[in-house]
Amino acid sequence: MKENPGIRSLDIAWPLYTDLYELTMAQGYFYEGMAEKAASFDYFFRKVPCGGGYVVFAGMADVVDVLSDFRFSSEALEYLRASGFQPEFLTYLRDFRFKGTIYSAHEGEIVFPNTPLVVVEGTLLEAQLIETLLLNMVNFQSLVATRAGRISQVVEPERIFLDFGLRRAQGLGGIQAARAAVIGGAAATSNVEAGRRYGIRITGTMAHAWIQAFDNELEAFRAFVRRYPDRSILLVDTYHTLASGVPNAIITAKELEARGHRLLGIRIDSGDMAYLARHARKMLDEAGLSYVKIFASNQLDEWIIRSLNEQKAPIDGFGVGTRLVTSYQCPALDGVYKLSSFDGRPRMKISDDPEKTTLPGRKRVFRYYDAGGLFYRDGILLAEEDPQHVKRLVHPVHRRLWTPVGDLPREALLHPVMIEGRPADIERDPYRINEYRRRRLALTPPEMLRFENPHIYKVGVSEHLWELKHSLIEQKQHKQ
Amino acid sequence: MKENPGIRSLDIAWPLYTDLYELTMAQGYFYEGMAEKAASFDYFFRKVPCGGGYVVFAGMADVVDVLSDFRFSSEALEYLRASGFQPEFLTYLRDFRFKGTIYSAHEGEIVFPNTPLVVVEGTLLEAQLIETLLLNMVNFQSLVATRAGRISQVVEPERIFLDFGLRRAQGLGGIQAARAAVIGGAAATSNVEAGRRYGIRITGTMAHAWIQAFDNELEAFRAFVRRYPDRSILLVDTYHTLASGVPNAIITAKELEARGHRLLGIRIDSGDMAYLARHARKMLDEAGLSYVKIFASNQLDEWIIRSLNEQKAPIDGFGVGTRLVTSYQCPALDGVYKLSSFDGRPRMKISDDPEKTTLPGRKRVFRYYDAGGLFYRDGILLAEEDPQHVKRLVHPVHRRLWTPVGDLPREALLHPVMIEGRPADIERDPYRINEYRRRRLALTPPEMLRFENPHIYKVGVSEHLWELKHSLIEQKQHKQ
Repeated sequence: MKENPGIRSLDIAWPLYTDLYELTMAQGYFYEGMAEKAASFDYFFRKVPCGGGYVVFAGMADVVDVLSDFRFSSEALEYLRASGFQPEFLTYLRDFRFKGTIYSAHEGEIVFPNTPLVVVEGTLLEAQLIETLLLNMVNFQSLVATRAGRISQVVEPERIFLDFGLRRAQGLGGIQAARAAVIGGAAATSNVEAGRRYGIRITGTMAHAWIQAFDNELEAFRAFVRRYPDRSILLVDTYHTLASGVPNAIITAKELEARGHRLLGIRIDSGDMAYLARHARKMLDEAGLSYVKIFASNQLDEWIIRSLNEQKAPIDGFGVGTRLVTSYQCPALDGVYKLSSFDGRPRMKISDDPEKTTLPGRKRVFRYYDAGGLFYRDGILLAEEDPQHVKRLVHPVHRRLWTPVGDLPREALLHPVMIEGRPADIERDPYRINEYRRRRLALTPPEMLRFENPHIYKVGVSEHLWELKHSLIEQKQHKQ
Repeated sequence: MKENPGIRSLDIAWPLYTDLYELTMAQGYFYEGMAEKAASFDYFFRKVPCGGGYVVFAGMADVVDVLSDFRFSSEALEYLRASGFQPEFLTYLRDFRFKGTIYSAHEGEIVFPNTPLVVVEGTLLEAQLIETLLLNMVNFQSLVATRAGRISQVVEPERIFLDFGLRRAQGLGGIQAARAAVIGGAAATSNVEAGRRYGIRITGTMAHAWIQAFDNELEAFRAFVRRYPDRSILLVDTYHTLASGVPNAIITAKELEARGHRLLGIRIDSGDMAYLARHARKMLDEAGLSYVKIFASNQLDEWIIRSLNEQKAPIDGFGVGTRLVTSYQCPALDGVYKLSSFDGRPRMKISDDPEKTTLPGRKRVFRYYDAGGLFYRDGILLAEEDPQHVKRLVHPVHRRLWTPVGDLPREALLHPVMIEGRPADIERDPYRINEYRRRRLALTPPEMLRFENPHIYKVGVSEHLWELKHSLIEQKQHKQ
């Protein structure tokens, strides 16, 4: 028997990075003669994680990256043959390339529930086949970018935070978490491979093991700054933070000063952060070391940092790990991918729950601004509609709830990121995407930014889309 | 500027799959002349996730796989050079291979807090360098294997469950989650790449999109079974489960029967599972289709399945997704990796919190059995101790709390998985590892298996280890 390749050679057979049913259905479409007929799908999520008011959209550059060279290798085809797929279908897959067109929100966009954020148009087979890939990448990176964005809210503008999460990350997901963290505002990551792969700044301090490997703490500090005289952050909690760690850091800093260097900072990784930081700050200041920064780590998240802010804890930088990279309190975003048209006809899923009934038809999405220049509404239109003629947005379920938008400034929310299989020129750099996120956050009504009971952002549909949806529901009911 | 490789070419530079500080410290050790002196580290966790009583240990085969060919490529070295690492150190890394010895619990072992589960012995540099890799892989796979093991508790022996989680998994972590799910008892995965990579059975049904792409549900069912006459599971909740989905499935099953085939099952993905399953079962049975199985999916976990059991919901198989692959309610295991000896001398971290003070010295671990043949205690001994001479296990903190173990049967818990850099012949197949897990679960006291307030498994140390620990604490206090 051939050995399984295991995790080491992680050249993923990307077309197999999917749920089996996508391939099972693709083979079905192929034999039914439906594979190459036109289809469109919408990606959206229904609920903001952690009770928040917004999501930071992320992950699309990776999807585009994978789809721009999406081929079934002979090894992948052999695996599918051995799994029972049919020869004609495998021959079809051998020459398969993704030739669809994808409209997407920009990465870093501030987005809300029920707005289509990605629209995929192509053949039924290709649009179906990429479902799991797209969901896996966009759901997770949007989740972590959102948590990072919330942490930015309580850290910026004076302080920074860093991703230290790889050791508790969900396996290889840690690589993508680092990228998403930067999109949400992290200044750097400890994850070297993510640094290399995405061009992210890498950072770090020292572990307790460094201290323990020396005969005593002072000797350990001295050895470290010998090697890194201008960028040392000394971990001060191995034995006793205030009785040993901080005094030894002060001695080390003074010795460094005498040699013309400056200690960058200390790191506190356990205990009462507010108490320890305040005392450490005082000790450092009294030693004339007001330039030495204090970093904190240990189970931090946006709520803990907010609490530290309220206590005026003098912390200059935060190392966040587990709770950021796993989004600990809400570790999944519920994004879905739904068929909206096939073979020239709008399609929908009619649920017993009206809120879960999907919106039919190929769509475009516009964002409307209020008089103050802030985000006001997202409007979902049919692709063939001219937004200039859309005067009202209607509640997707209740016809009598509508808002006039005819005179409001608007912009397209979705932009082509792949055009007939060719990647468009999109922003990929996570730091520049973060700059975009910052600009967009400044346009978000402050009521959406609260951590508790945020205002719910309204999303409406055009009257044409409303009529289409409800006429299809009626048709279906008559058939039954 | 050179383009970042992005996610596509996922040939990870494994030595860079780490926190920067491991490399920063490694360079420090190198220049301090400490790099090649002997060291040992222990891996253990402090808390069972989700309030459970045990953890299923997993992930080690991947660690061994990576370490058995752990080289700094010229590309990785160039990245480190550009990041400021020094030429002599990079030359050292160029020829670096992992030559250490690793003792580990078997994958699939039932394990408990504070027991060392992995002991790494090697040079300080090599043992330090693998910290993040080991933590990342073992923490996550153990977490998911544990959740899967708990799901097995409420599903087995009559029913099965399947991993359907990739779309909500934490990015690439979904690949490792599928392996861990099988170690914990999942019968198969929807994740095709994980199937190919780890030799896991792959499985799936159909999506709502398949139904929507046809003019009506019955036509969609007929087309699917035409292609898959003997293994179709029909999704029955696209329009109305009991009014449309199940009746159409029955028509389809009868037509299949007439052609000499059998419908495998139906899948319910929304609504009240217990209610719908009971009514669907009745309708199927009345149609003479008692062989058609009912599968359920939609936000399932061990608590929901237990509740369905209590309601006697006639469900034959469970598709579990988000809550398994992200371990939704407790998405991280807090495993740590601590220096225990260096340069021939035991080392420890002395915390203000006595429970967080680590155990010094190179160790071996034995599991003791009670008179009934069940797991009774884990005993942590110093490597040089003969377990035959250990008569008592002592509480790690409180000397007066001890248990006689001299007459109890025992076995070594840790086994070599790498010997001086060469991988040992370990079990890698997740199904056989799951068989081991099942056998070990049968030896676990039932009080540890409860979901609510499980009994706490006791872990003790030898008297020699206790004395060593407390004499080192005293020494340290005298020095201060």
